[in-house]
Amino acid sequence: MNMKKIAAEHAVQYIEDGMKVGLGTGSTAYWAIQKLGQRVQEGLSIQAVATSIASEKLALELGIPIIPFAELNGLNVTIDGADEVNPELHLIKGGGGALLREKIVAYHSEKLIIIADESKWVPTLGQFPLPVEIIPFAVEWTVQSLEQLGCKVQLRTEGEQIFITDNQNYIADCSFGTIPSPLKLHNDILSIPGIVDNGLFIGLADQVIIGHKDGSVEIMGRK
Amino acid sequence: MNMKKIAAEHAVQYIEDGMKVGLGTGSTAYWAIQKLGQRVQEGLSIQAVATSIASEKLALELGIPIIPFAELNGLNVTIDGADEVNPELHLIKGGGGALLREKIVAYHSEKLIIIADESKWVPTLGQFPLPVEIIPFAVEWTVQSLEQLGCKVQLRTEGEQIFITDNQNYIADCSFGTIPSPLKLHNDILSIPGIVDNGLFIGLADQVIIGHKDGSVEIMGRK
Repeated sequence: MNMKKIAAEHAVQYIEDGMKVGLGTGSTAYWAIQKLGQRVQEGLSIQAVATSIASEKLALELGIPIIPFAELNGLNVTIDGADEVNPELHLIKGGGGALLREKIVAYHSEKLIIIADESKWVPTLGQFPLPVEIIPFAVEWTVQSLEQLGCKVQLRTEGEQIFITDNQNYIADCSFGTIPSPLKLHNDILSIPGIVDNGLFIGLADQVIIGHKDGSVEIMGRK
Repeated sequence: MNMKKIAAEHAVQYIEDGMKVGLGTGSTAYWAIQKLGQRVQEGLSIQAVATSIASEKLALELGIPIIPFAELNGLNVTIDGADEVNPELHLIKGGGGALLREKIVAYHSEKLIIIADESKWVPTLGQFPLPVEIIPFAVEWTVQSLEQLGCKVQLRTEGEQIFITDNQNYIADCSFGTIPSPLKLHNDILSIPGIVDNGLFIGLADQVIIGHKDGSVEIMGRK
C-alpha cells in the first residue's frame, strides 16, 4: 500500500468547484496534485497556486490552472506534506528546502490540510532536523546564535556547494533531538536577526490525514 | 553647528585600542567613520566591520582595517545612526535600506551607541514610516498582512524600479503615524511569513548621544 497516495487522495475529496487551492511540494503532495489533475480533467473547476517550481510544472502538465498570487485574494484550501506532525498538529516542514513559500501559502489559506504517511506522526517534534532559512550575510554569527538555542547546526549543501533557496538564502538544518516547546522555540528563532523563517508550523494545520500501512486513513483536526 | 558631527565625534571617544567595532550607515555614521579614521591615522588600533558597502569603502579609504565577519567572534561596540529614538531607547532604523545588516551587527555587539541630531528624538515612534524588509515571493499577500496591522504601505522604489536590498529583498515603508507598543508591533510583524525583519530596534541601543543646535550633546543610556 502506498501510504502517501492514500492520504493524498483522501484529502483531494475535500476540494470543490470554484475553490482557490494551494499546492504543496514533495513526495506526498505529488500524489495530491496527480489526483487533483484527474479531477480537473473530469470537470472540476479550480484556481491554484504552487509552493515550488516543481509542483507548478506538474500541475500545468495535468491541466490544473495556475494563477498569479497577485490575482488571488488568499486561498480556500492548501494541501501539503510535512516532515513531522505532533498531537497538537504542530509541524516540522521544509526538508525539501521550500519552507518559506510553503509557510506563506499555508498562512494565507483558510484551511491547511496536511497529508503524511504514518512515519511522520511523532509524540514530540525534533527528531527531524529543523530547517531554518537564513540570510547569507554574516552567516557565521547567525549559526552561532542558533547553536546557543541548544542544537547542532549543519549548513545544507548540494553536492559541494552551499544549498541556495528559491529566495537566494541558505538553509541551516538544526538538530535539537527533541523540541518540547515548539512555540517558544519558534519565537526564539525568529528573534535572531538574519533569520528569515523556520520549519516550525505552529497552529497552521487545520486537519492532518495520516495514511497507514493497512490502507486506512486517520483524520485529526481542529475544524 | 553640525549636530550630527558633534554627536558622532563624541561617540568615537569611547573607542579604545584593541576594540572590535561595528560601523553604521548613513549621514550621521559618516561623521563617526571620519573621526575614527583620524584616530586610526593617529595610532589607534582597531578591527572593524561595516553595515554597508558605502561605509566599508569609506573606512578603507581612511585606513580603518575591515575584517571579514567570520574572523570576528562578535563586536565590542557599534556606532550607528537612527531615524527615530524614543525615551525607552527603542529605535526606528532602516531609512537608508540597510536595516537587516544594521540589526545583525547591532545584535552581535556588546554595546550599541546610537548617534543622532535632536530632530530624531521623539516622544512616540511612528511618525517616520517603518521600513520592513520582505521577500519578493507573493509580495501582494505580505503587504495585505502588514496593512491589517493598521498602516499604509508603500513599496519602496528607486526611480521607476522597485528598490532591492543588499539581500535581494524589497522594502515596504509602513506609515503607522504612531506606534504606542513597539515590542508588540515588532512581534506581530515578525509573525507574518515572508517578512525578513523590520526597522524596530527594541532593547538593542545601550546609549544614545543626541547633538543639539547649540553644540551640546545629551547622553542617554542604560549602561
